[in-house]
Amino acid sequence: MESLFLQSNSRSSSTLSPQRRAEEVKSCSFQGFIKNTKTTNTTKLAMALTQVSSNKCCGGYQKVFEHDSSELKCKMKFAIYLPPKAESGKCPVLYWLSGLTCTEQNFITKAGCQRLLPSMASSLSPRIQAHVSGCNIEGEDESWDFGTGAGFYVDATQEPWKTNYRMYSYVTEELPRLINSNFPVDPEKMSISGHSMGGHGALICALKNPGKYKAVSAFAPICNPMQCAWGQKAFSGYLGPEKSTWEAYDATVLAASYSGPELDILIDQGRDDQFLSASQLLPDNLIAACSEKKIPVVFRLQQGYDHSYYFVFSFVEDHIKHHAKYLNA
Amino acid sequence: MESLFLQSNSRSSSTLSPQRRAEEVKSCSFQGFIKNTKTTNTTKLAMALTQVSSNKCCGGYQKVFEHDSSELKCKMKFAIYLPPKAESGKCPVLYWLSGLTCTEQNFITKAGCQRLLPSMASSLSPRIQAHVSGCNIEGEDESWDFGTGAGFYVDATQEPWKTNYRMYSYVTEELPRLINSNFPVDPEKMSISGHSMGGHGALICALKNPGKYKAVSAFAPICNPMQCAWGQKAFSGYLGPEKSTWEAYDATVLAASYSGPELDILIDQGRDDQFLSASQLLPDNLIAACSEKKIPVVFRLQQGYDHSYYFVFSFVEDHIKHHAKYLNA
Repeated sequence: MESLFLQSNSRSSSTLSPQRRAEEVKSCSFQGFIKNTKTTNTTKLAMALTQVSSNKCCGGYQKVFEHDSSELKCKMKFAIYLPPKAESGKCPVLYWLSGLTCTEQNFITKAGCQRLLPSMASSLSPRIQAHVSGCNIEGEDESWDFGTGAGFYVDATQEPWKTNYRMYSYVTEELPRLINSNFPVDPEKMSISGHSMGGHGALICALKNPGKYKAVSAFAPICNPMQCAWGQKAFSGYLGPEKSTWEAYDATVLAASYSGPELDILIDQGRDDQFLSASQLLPDNLIAACSEKKIPVVFRLQQGYDHSYYFVFSFVEDHIKHHAKYLNA
Repeated sequence: MESLFLQSNSRSSSTLSPQRRAEEVKSCSFQGFIKNTKTTNTTKLAMALTQVSSNKCCGGYQKVFEHDSSELKCKMKFAIYLPPKAESGKCPVLYWLSGLTCTEQNFITKAGCQRLLPSMASSLSPRIQAHVSGCNIEGEDESWDFGTGAGFYVDATQEPWKTNYRMYSYVTEELPRLINSNFPVDPEKMSISGHSMGGHGALICALKNPGKYKAVSAFAPICNPMQCAWGQKAFSGYLGPEKSTWEAYDATVLAASYSGPELDILIDQGRDDQFLSASQLLPDNLIAACSEKKIPVVFRLQQGYDHSYYFVFSFVEDHIKHHAKYLNA
């Protein structure tokens, strides 16, 4: 699958000098799509992206862009892998949502997907990293599992979060618009995957939008956040005490009422994952709900594997194949 | 090639709690080789290793160990990948030397080798990251290309470096002894590779020890350090002003006088590498010396690629195959 991967983050992690940036932009094979501010005949959207870095990788380009998010009211970064095929045609898009505390760098440097993509047919997939930070909200940096680096892919309704912490709308609406307008993608062919908190995000995005994503998969997802400590802390803070409002962002609850095109869910879970034994992930609850609704789930409990990116790295090839099956159909 | 990779670094990068460390040790599939201090019937060497982390990866284990180096008089860390085959038999060893400023984490998280190794025959390869740090030497942290993170794989002869900065002896003598004593390896089958400063290290280790390494390869190596700014700064500091002492650590000079078993060298170089155009790498000089001595070099100038790990990642599979050809012979 030839895929464009995208991962976003608002933290500033650029270490490139202005000169180096200029060199990178010069070497960008997609400058036709990324117009600079001096070009007169560009759309507002096309002007919004600033290229932070570009590295040739496996025949394509691994790039990082920055933009002002209208949904989140702050600067966001995303990483995108453009496979060789993107130079000559439109490709499908695979979005990747990362876990707690990760930046847009995690997946692009650790998962090793770029090598797999050029050899696997004809899609193009961005991946998204879903953090909000730099909003100057009191308390957002106090905890590793709430606030900065832990947006949980919800649209917050509570103060002081509700203005900026709108990752659900960012991931499902603003970012796809941005990607579809600026890169050579087929807007009808998108799918979604993620790790841990990002696995929760991928599942709810797919379950809440029947037909929008052609496929979904997850690594060690938080499957039933209403019933685990991480989810309860996040949902209380972002959504308030009324638990009925939490149900809109809980994969297990959403699966129990899902109605739409058949979803084929692939989940890998490490058997020695410390967060599985600490009852943060609760895959059994999701599987039970899916069984009830006859939603097909392939759930693989992988002996000896933990919660790390080494686990993701070990099985990501199978996930790419799972997505390719539907994106290339 | 089923390979054990090793990479070492003396910086403390462990974030594991004591409890987590205990869990990791428990899950170690090689505890038979790594004796703890309570075991009475162990050798001095076998007692020296402390496991810092262990993550199952692609059917094997990616581990990090710490030890007190007698050569460097400080604590060193190395990362090692143990493929599935290491559970039942002895494997060859591929050593990896990293570049300026890298830690033992760079190659294991970014190069994505673990996926390639289980599927490629029957070797086992450690990889080494070659930094000295934490020695409390005045000035060692002042510069990114000298001192901490920039040992240049030489045995320093000058004050204040000569006591600790002995990376050449560490890489070629102490570490192989440690690996051969503690892991299921075939001591007769070792090879070496590296990136940038580590590529220089790999080349000089192979050229200075005819027959010791079955194969050598390098990504964007510093080929003629005596003639570039990085090398001149490092060699002046570690070896003093007398240039005749520098020749023992310069791949181009060593190639010109090489005498030993045939060496088959594979070098990949990014054509858009800023350090190539800045005359820090000078591959032409090495190629000329090798041509003169009829040492076979496959030199591949890769269009559009820079000096980053994305470049290494893109071509590492070819290097693994190059090493496997000789390690499995």
